[in-house]
Amino acid sequence: MMIKAFAAFEPGGQLKPFEYDPGDLKPHEVEIDVHYCGLCHSDLNVIDNDWGNTQYPVVPGHEVVGKIAKVGEQVKHLRVGQIVGLGWDAGYCNECVHCHAGDHNLCSKAQATIIGHHGGFADKVRAAGNSVVPIPEGIELASAGPLLCGGITVFNPLVQFEVKLTDKVAVIGIGGLGHIALQFLNAWGCEVTAFTSSETKKEEILHLGAHHTLNSLNQKEIEAATGHFDLIISTVNVKLDWNRYLNTLKPRGRLHFVGITTEPVDIDIFSLIIGQYSVSGSPGGSPATIAKMLDFAARHHIKPVVENYRFDGINDAIARLKKGQVRYRMVLSH
Amino acid sequence: MMIKAFAAFEPGGQLKPFEYDPGDLKPHEVEIDVHYCGLCHSDLNVIDNDWGNTQYPVVPGHEVVGKIAKVGEQVKHLRVGQIVGLGWDAGYCNECVHCHAGDHNLCSKAQATIIGHHGGFADKVRAAGNSVVPIPEGIELASAGPLLCGGITVFNPLVQFEVKLTDKVAVIGIGGLGHIALQFLNAWGCEVTAFTSSETKKEEILHLGAHHTLNSLNQKEIEAATGHFDLIISTVNVKLDWNRYLNTLKPRGRLHFVGITTEPVDIDIFSLIIGQYSVSGSPGGSPATIAKMLDFAARHHIKPVVENYRFDGINDAIARLKKGQVRYRMVLSH
Repeated sequence: MMIKAFAAFEPGGQLKPFEYDPGDLKPHEVEIDVHYCGLCHSDLNVIDNDWGNTQYPVVPGHEVVGKIAKVGEQVKHLRVGQIVGLGWDAGYCNECVHCHAGDHNLCSKAQATIIGHHGGFADKVRAAGNSVVPIPEGIELASAGPLLCGGITVFNPLVQFEVKLTDKVAVIGIGGLGHIALQFLNAWGCEVTAFTSSETKKEEILHLGAHHTLNSLNQKEIEAATGHFDLIISTVNVKLDWNRYLNTLKPRGRLHFVGITTEPVDIDIFSLIIGQYSVSGSPGGSPATIAKMLDFAARHHIKPVVENYRFDGINDAIARLKKGQVRYRMVLSH
Repeated sequence: MMIKAFAAFEPGGQLKPFEYDPGDLKPHEVEIDVHYCGLCHSDLNVIDNDWGNTQYPVVPGHEVVGKIAKVGEQVKHLRVGQIVGLGWDAGYCNECVHCHAGDHNLCSKAQATIIGHHGGFADKVRAAGNSVVPIPEGIELASAGPLLCGGITVFNPLVQFEVKLTDKVAVIGIGGLGHIALQFLNAWGCEVTAFTSSETKKEEILHLGAHHTLNSLNQKEIEAATGHFDLIISTVNVKLDWNRYLNTLKPRGRLHFVGITTEPVDIDIFSLIIGQYSVSGSPGGSPATIAKMLDFAARHHIKPVVENYRFDGINDAIARLKKGQVRYRMVLSH
């Protein structure tokens, strides 16, 4: 059997049809018929080899929603026909202290779905059974893909740092990740603020769950927010004036990065000390936390706002994402 | 009544005898007969106006051990003759959310003992009653001063971040703060490592409580420690290669600053995200935490290693501290 996929063959290359033979299904794996797959900014990073670890031809796609087609003999918790999701990781070492502790996303040998492994821009994709999470009733499948990477990335910090419903939380960057963060934070019970300089997005942002917007370019607004937030989550991938945001944290507050910038954080140590601030980051989330997130999303009717494309229009979708025109996330289907 | 003190009259100036009239004791204050006062690096920062907020003449000294001489009428928990300590803060607003929560050291209106207030290089010093902490039995008074600033600064993170006795903790900089940190961490039950490049200090460092030393300039030793520590506490006031230390943290680990450097931290965001690291800082500790620390120090026979000077040799003491020759902390007495 051949899997029909779309692959890039060189950095910055267009995606082209690509067939590959996945071989025998391994005992710990499942095969998923791909129904939907989100398009994430990190797909572009991998296509372009921005992180230097891309293996060509690369089949991107790591926000998969589909149906289990085959189950390896060692996989006991999934069955053929079940609707599941697959995100950034398609397997773990299962032997390290992080895997043992349930922190699979911190496993240094985690198998990324799209690095040295063929991803979800295809009719089928394979993954280790324990990297795949059943999607509960109440989740709209056509828009669920982005929860598997973008969604868990912004949900995970709420679990990791035990964010309280009395906390005041702000989000930097209201795009693919940020617009899901606003929904989660609102449902979590927090006071939710969106940092944005876009007046045109304001109404939509409030509709998504923000109680307030704050224009980070407006000196008066920033000063008025001095010492206000318990947590700020940055989803952007550009360097900003981080010390400006730090000043809007309460003492004990946390500036948390889920968006990758290539420039280092340049935080003032004196401020860090005086405010007892933490600056941190986190990658995706474990399968257990993904399951928790999906349950929470179903119960609170949280869903990514997506634009739908067919897989044969994938290069147009990529071009649109590169231009920053997407509101707020793209999902591909056959 | 005049208080006989030592003051600097200009940035970098020698300390000279200085008398001042403290006026009537305020109802919320106590007056302390100074028996001992530690000399801390931040006394030099204030003498030299490094932070731009020094008010001259400045009477430094904020690691005071002494006996209560007078008690203001509103102060009910202290009595004349009681042995007490006074540290970085000599008063709080008592009205803000941080004071209400017991986090007085995070009060933005905290009255520093030596900024706009006359400190402990004197025969007497005054302070708000609730900034003064009784010193329990079992603490050696002649070496206790440095606990009040240096000690609480390295003890407070153990309380704030709920450090576990199963944690592996490293200390950067084995000087005035670091040598106390090693003792606390050992008594706390942690595996304790001292980062040092000084072979001559090694034996002393192990004696102070470190189980291991690690030469941060030795590439092999650093690489062997990859992913090892839960917590690293930096006590130094010079810029180091922080990303090198970050790599020795376990996933979920924390790099914590209590030493101030003027250059910003230049942490790589990708590393921060992949490792779910936190980079943080903290200032001193609240009176409640100081009391907790003194109790812990008494029970575990923890005491700063000090060199003793007379107040009339204070300029020699300062010169020695500036040369970095002190092992490990200085205490002045009359």
